[in-house]
Amino acid sequence: MKRSDLPTPALVIEADAFERNLRSMAAQFPGGALRPHVKAHKCTSLAAKQVEVGHRSFTCATPHEVVGMAEAGIGDDLLLANESIDPIRLARMAAVQHLTMVTIAVDSPATVDAAARAGLRHVIVDVNVGLPRCGALPEDAGRIADLARAAGMEVRGVMGYEGHLMMVDDRGEQAQRVADAMGRLIAAHELVGGDIVSAGGTGTAHLHHVVSPGSGPGVTEVQAGSYALMDSHYARLVESFEQAAFVLGTVISVGNTNGGYAVADVGLKAVGMDHGNPTLATGHGSGGTVWFLSDEHITFRPDQPVVVGDRVHVVPAHIDPTMAMHAVAWLVDGDEVVDRWPIDLRGW
Amino acid sequence: MKRSDLPTPALVIEADAFERNLRSMAAQFPGGALRPHVKAHKCTSLAAKQVEVGHRSFTCATPHEVVGMAEAGIGDDLLLANESIDPIRLARMAAVQHLTMVTIAVDSPATVDAAARAGLRHVIVDVNVGLPRCGALPEDAGRIADLARAAGMEVRGVMGYEGHLMMVDDRGEQAQRVADAMGRLIAAHELVGGDIVSAGGTGTAHLHHVVSPGSGPGVTEVQAGSYALMDSHYARLVESFEQAAFVLGTVISVGNTNGGYAVADVGLKAVGMDHGNPTLATGHGSGGTVWFLSDEHITFRPDQPVVVGDRVHVVPAHIDPTMAMHAVAWLVDGDEVVDRWPIDLRGW
Repeated sequence: MKRSDLPTPALVIEADAFERNLRSMAAQFPGGALRPHVKAHKCTSLAAKQVEVGHRSFTCATPHEVVGMAEAGIGDDLLLANESIDPIRLARMAAVQHLTMVTIAVDSPATVDAAARAGLRHVIVDVNVGLPRCGALPEDAGRIADLARAAGMEVRGVMGYEGHLMMVDDRGEQAQRVADAMGRLIAAHELVGGDIVSAGGTGTAHLHHVVSPGSGPGVTEVQAGSYALMDSHYARLVESFEQAAFVLGTVISVGNTNGGYAVADVGLKAVGMDHGNPTLATGHGSGGTVWFLSDEHITFRPDQPVVVGDRVHVVPAHIDPTMAMHAVAWLVDGDEVVDRWPIDLRGW
Repeated sequence: MKRSDLPTPALVIEADAFERNLRSMAAQFPGGALRPHVKAHKCTSLAAKQVEVGHRSFTCATPHEVVGMAEAGIGDDLLLANESIDPIRLARMAAVQHLTMVTIAVDSPATVDAAARAGLRHVIVDVNVGLPRCGALPEDAGRIADLARAAGMEVRGVMGYEGHLMMVDDRGEQAQRVADAMGRLIAAHELVGGDIVSAGGTGTAHLHHVVSPGSGPGVTEVQAGSYALMDSHYARLVESFEQAAFVLGTVISVGNTNGGYAVADVGLKAVGMDHGNPTLATGHGSGGTVWFLSDEHITFRPDQPVVVGDRVHVVPAHIDPTMAMHAVAWLVDGDEVVDRWPIDLRGW
């Protein structure tokens, strides 16, 4: 199969850029210093490549990601960096503890209680470091840890996601605010104990200086996921990684105004829209200016005349939800399709 | 199973509101006067309910929707209201022509040629009525029809989607602009021939006065889909239909500022974001003001204090992509779950 023969819309991953992204991150955060986030790709085949470059611990956002990774035998230390009180899904995660280590975030008595009742054995205390989302106050974190230990669970440490700081444009301001947030996390860690201090994402990884677990105060591992495939939003802020994923489309109509616009078959059901419109890659056939997306269409002004049948490469503004919209990803090397990866961790 | 026991996020459809929406639209556009759009729900079980109230012809946006409807035996006249030149998918649609009538939109010599080569037997000429998307110029429509007839296909008529007029706030302006757009479509129909003049959507249905096929100039059928389930965007403009679909969520964290915000498990992978943030339904547990969504979270300021475990009902701003994000919909009657509908037409 050739890239140029793929039915569209098709999610394609360029193998060379993807491999460079993996190696670049693994050089900076080798082995356990990186806990790659599965939510960014939802694909066990892709996660297996992250294992090949040395990472064996993973971050997940949904119980289904945890269970799917465990059943696929990928990694040996899976963290649900999210709260759940759902007895069915907690039980499913508990049921794969014989396959791998499963750890779940807790931030309240209710989440501790639900984890204990489900038979989960390992928790991490989620600490609010400034993002208005989940996480206990740093000063409450010790109390949450005590509750978990009293319920018979091992407390492996703390996590705190500085998601509100991924997109700070001013580099100096970002560094200062991340340092402040990590100060809160490390203060909480002193109250909680355990080996792990987990934080960070693709937008702040460069600001983290990871220390070995138990060697002193500091972040012990970085949670990042988007770095592997990237998107136009992160590309504005992070220069270390290349765009590796595209939604391949076909021009199906060239408009009625002599080339003023054209229409391709990549709509808003094929690309995450929460960060705004995608862009068109140049150097992959025609680039152009995106006007708008409908359910199954992208209307754009092409840089050069196009005809029906031409291909376009759409760059998502947000890779995570884009992956969740596709059933398969096609790994390509030039025009060769070299692998077909099911996006098998969709859903909850 | 109870609604209150559903693992979340869960797409729930309230049976009574859904039934009222179907009956209300069928009263206004009975039988073949409505060609319900499958893209709004991607669910053969839901389409079967539209058959029960009298509609037997359907609009689809993807080849997979056409093939899935045909194989499920739902309806007897399926229109792909979209262009395709993909030989594989066109062949799949041609292969179900023994099960149902399949008609595909064409707007260029290339799309006519692709349909003919695939063995498709029926086309409709897609006419641009003002939306910068697919569609031939009205004055070119006759030429496209001639090409299709010369290639041995039956030309069933014209379609023209006035998608740019769904959201016009001024009612008088909307009515005038829809009338102008339909004037262009009817002019094209005179050049094309055939029985069908297909147009409209949930936002403009009330402006269409459908005539019987062959009885004189005019629109013969309306394509509408969102009316069955609705969303917050259409609710601002269309009063005839009720919100019937919600994404049910569970509060998983109540924030660290004494109730200033709470977090539920309905993130941007569970709700279409292209029309902006969803809202929270009132009268279904706590309402509130939505702050932002992350991949798996919605952060909101609740109207009343909430605790971990409370349920929220999220109203999508755009129902079509929301349906495409879920594998199943749960039909509920009060707290009873009365049916489980696979959303089986996702993908392409």
